[in-house]
Amino acid sequence: MLRNDQLDQWDRDSFFHPSTHLAEFARGNLPQRVVTGGSGCYIQDRDGTRLLDAFAGLYCVNVGYGRSEIADAIAEQAKELAYYHAYMGHGTEASITLAKMILDRAPSHMSRVYFGLSGSDANETNIKLVWYANNILGRPEKKKIISRWRGYHGSGLVTGSLTGLELFHKKFDLPLPPVLHTQAPYYFRRPDRSMSEADFVTHCVTELEQLIETQGADTIAAFIGEPVLGTGGIVPPPDGYWPAIQAVLDKHDILLIADEVVTGFGRLGSMFGSDHYGMRPDIMTIAKGLTSAYAPLSGSIISEKLWSVLEQGTDENGPIGHGWTYSAHPVSAAAGVANLQLIDAQDLVAQAGAVGAYLNAAMADALKGHPHVGEVRGEGMLCAVELVRDADASVFFGADEKVGPRVAAHMLEHAKVIARAMPQGDILGFAPPFCLTKGQADEIVAATVQAIAATLQ
Amino acid sequence: MLRNDQLDQWDRDSFFHPSTHLAEFARGNLPQRVVTGGSGCYIQDRDGTRLLDAFAGLYCVNVGYGRSEIADAIAEQAKELAYYHAYMGHGTEASITLAKMILDRAPSHMSRVYFGLSGSDANETNIKLVWYANNILGRPEKKKIISRWRGYHGSGLVTGSLTGLELFHKKFDLPLPPVLHTQAPYYFRRPDRSMSEADFVTHCVTELEQLIETQGADTIAAFIGEPVLGTGGIVPPPDGYWPAIQAVLDKHDILLIADEVVTGFGRLGSMFGSDHYGMRPDIMTIAKGLTSAYAPLSGSIISEKLWSVLEQGTDENGPIGHGWTYSAHPVSAAAGVANLQLIDAQDLVAQAGAVGAYLNAAMADALKGHPHVGEVRGEGMLCAVELVRDADASVFFGADEKVGPRVAAHMLEHAKVIARAMPQGDILGFAPPFCLTKGQADEIVAATVQAIAATLQ
Ligand SMILES: Cc1ncc(COP(=O)(O)O)c(C=O)c1O
Ligand SMILES: Cc1ncc(COP(=O)(O)O)c(C=O)c1O
Repeated sequence: MLRNDQLDQWDRDSFFHPSTHLAEFARGNLPQRVVTGGSGCYIQDRDGTRLLDAFAGLYCVNVGYGRSEIADAIAEQAKELAYYHAYMGHGTEASITLAKMILDRAPSHMSRVYFGLSGSDANETNIKLVWYANNILGRPEKKKIISRWRGYHGSGLVTGSLTGLELFHKKFDLPLPPVLHTQAPYYFRRPDRSMSEADFVTHCVTELEQLIETQGADTIAAFIGEPVLGTGGIVPPPDGYWPAIQAVLDKHDILLIADEVVTGFGRLGSMFGSDHYGMRPDIMTIAKGLTSAYAPLSGSIISEKLWSVLEQGTDENGPIGHGWTYSAHPVSAAAGVANLQLIDAQDLVAQAGAVGAYLNAAMADALKGHPHVGEVRGEGMLCAVELVRDADASVFFGADEKVGPRVAAHMLEHAKVIARAMPQGDILGFAPPFCLTKGQADEIVAATVQAIAATLQ
Repeated sequence: MLRNDQLDQWDRDSFFHPSTHLAEFARGNLPQRVVTGGSGCYIQDRDGTRLLDAFAGLYCVNVGYGRSEIADAIAEQAKELAYYHAYMGHGTEASITLAKMILDRAPSHMSRVYFGLSGSDANETNIKLVWYANNILGRPEKKKIISRWRGYHGSGLVTGSLTGLELFHKKFDLPLPPVLHTQAPYYFRRPDRSMSEADFVTHCVTELEQLIETQGADTIAAFIGEPVLGTGGIVPPPDGYWPAIQAVLDKHDILLIADEVVTGFGRLGSMFGSDHYGMRPDIMTIAKGLTSAYAPLSGSIISEKLWSVLEQGTDENGPIGHGWTYSAHPVSAAAGVANLQLIDAQDLVAQAGAVGAYLNAAMADALKGHPHVGEVRGEGMLCAVELVRDADASVFFGADEKVGPRVAAHMLEHAKVIARAMPQGDILGFAPPFCLTKGQADEIVAATVQAIAATLQ
């Protein structure tokens, strides 16, 4: 269809890429890559380069590339009925079935699924529903949302405010007022190196309690958190963190929103992060793993208790004024059904747990005692390597040294392995598809060791 | 795969439908409809009922149902490469090609396309970009957004604030402060029946100027409007409205966001509403018609002038902190390419204009002099019938009489024609697929006449 040189120019001249240096890209000073195909853990570009994708797209292609089961389901649904809306009681076999399948997998106290398109819009829905519910319950002042520094919950105006990363605030006038931040449960960067994990949990809980006290519990509606911090650096919580936080929230009647966009549907080796850490969320945010990114789909899973307030709300006020045109899009829902069936059929949650543990152990082993490796951490099929100037003295690199991006670039160029430099902090992140083999895990480890050696000698 | 009775129960027990009375639906007191297929202007449900969809889904299935050209493109892309992200200069043939195709169709001063999923998230992106740009330009106070009562721009927290309909504000604590509303250019409901159209335009412009003066032009960043008001009641602007508004905005250096989610790609019989009315937008919001809803995709088309400020922003601050995981999703982009090709190949924009004019004329003719028809209005393939208690004396029905919903329900039951009762005001809306035939237009008109007669005798 296209001559190659045309496509490159069209890209520079027409396409506004997300999270990109716009001027440098337009000037031709940043690389472009036109991706044409994928299979298993590999993608392929237009120049014939084959890359081992150790980040599964943006940790979303959980079942791996080229799964014909999902592509076929998409094709069939697109042919039968590409679209009808879900407003006012309309649905399709795919969307209804998927809602049921999600609830079968979610904790038993969850009750309904609202469908959106992106993780961001699902969190937007969540805040709307929390505010609505507190209006119905007659506590109109209870509206603030507590999030955590280093959390990632989206890129919208309010959802970007939930996100606790400077890159997403700077020059956008964020965070907006209804959002407050408390500290991340980031033990490696604890304020005082002598703290035990248990001390550090107490420290996090105390800070949260103080925030609640200062603001007044009757002004705070919800707390949102990823079971494992993702984009903020792949940080699993210290032991006992979630039960301790949950206790504080329960005490103050503050809802818990578990943002399971990364962790949902198996990435930790459990179906949900909430199961994994014993969280009892009132809302769960889902996206990426729901369709393994084969089609855009997100969701908000609503607890029985919250749902009954929403029902009361519509009894008092009529139909709820919330909806996206493409909510429960049939093609996306069909992708979701096929994806969840595939995960079951191939026991991919267990594989994510087992091969993820292997990858984490192998990475830790290979980098043990390395002077520039502060920590290797992970959970399930998530792994991070935190690079530091001096591991023994706990001296960090400056962000401007771009150590993470440099190491990732080296891996890409020399080993053809895609890892992701996480923003703020020199962290190299890995989140491969669940179908990763131990051999591929070894490849990733070897590429990492080599790239660190080459970059930080 | 499923027994029917199971599916119905799953629906009631699991699925949170948008814009629905949640309690009544859960209790089984609202109808459910499982849609299974569609062809041309018709959809079919699981019970074998065939319905003439005179609203094209939610005015989005512009090319009609069952188009194999688009389904095949989706199938092919899903098989080749269902997903890769578009961050940091990545793309696919489909997404790059679509960006170029959109710019080829947009006004010549437009420069780049950012892709989202929904009309709502595109407007969210727009506000972020407008705020960012004014920070880069060193005018951090210039941030408020003026929207119009009866406008519809989304269902998020900020985008639902832009929306000027009470249903979307009530119990959600909206609108949020950065959004201001001015009056809709709704001539039929003008404050004083003796006003001419020209007087009424002056009246709208004066109100806007007063709002700008009161607030201070240096606090106002942008004005957002649909070329033709859609969900607020299908209201084409009075003659001269847009040029007069544009002049005010230009004078005060306020950006114009043309929300073309409904009007984009042909619904008015022109490629864009901006062409149709001579608007010179700085940003155009697109969604629905971009893929004819075959897959979720939206976009923000950015003018050359605004783009250069964004480039300056990344030169000063590095990569832009904005992105959705599914931005420029390959499957959605492939649907968009096939959809725009189909529209061209079948000359559907011209058909929308011609058959839309026929529908509007036939409707006006059939209802002329009807005591309960205040106005028949429309533009291109958009048509509305406004029902009133007394047309001669201009006495309106109360919203609680639900005249619009009752007439629509009658059409659905007796004529198997889907029209849409628009919220607030007893307006019956029509927005059929562009492939509507004159015979089908006649059917819609006959069904409308009959349903009005049966409901309002
Ligand atoms: C935990 C979490 N929540 C929400 C989001 C936002 O999802 P999306 O990019 O689909 O809007 C992300 C995206 O990375 C995420 O990691
Ligand atoms: C003019 C306009 N803008 C924005 C939207 C929001 O689009 P979405 O429902 O895809 O979020 C709509 C939806 O009807 C619309 O009509």
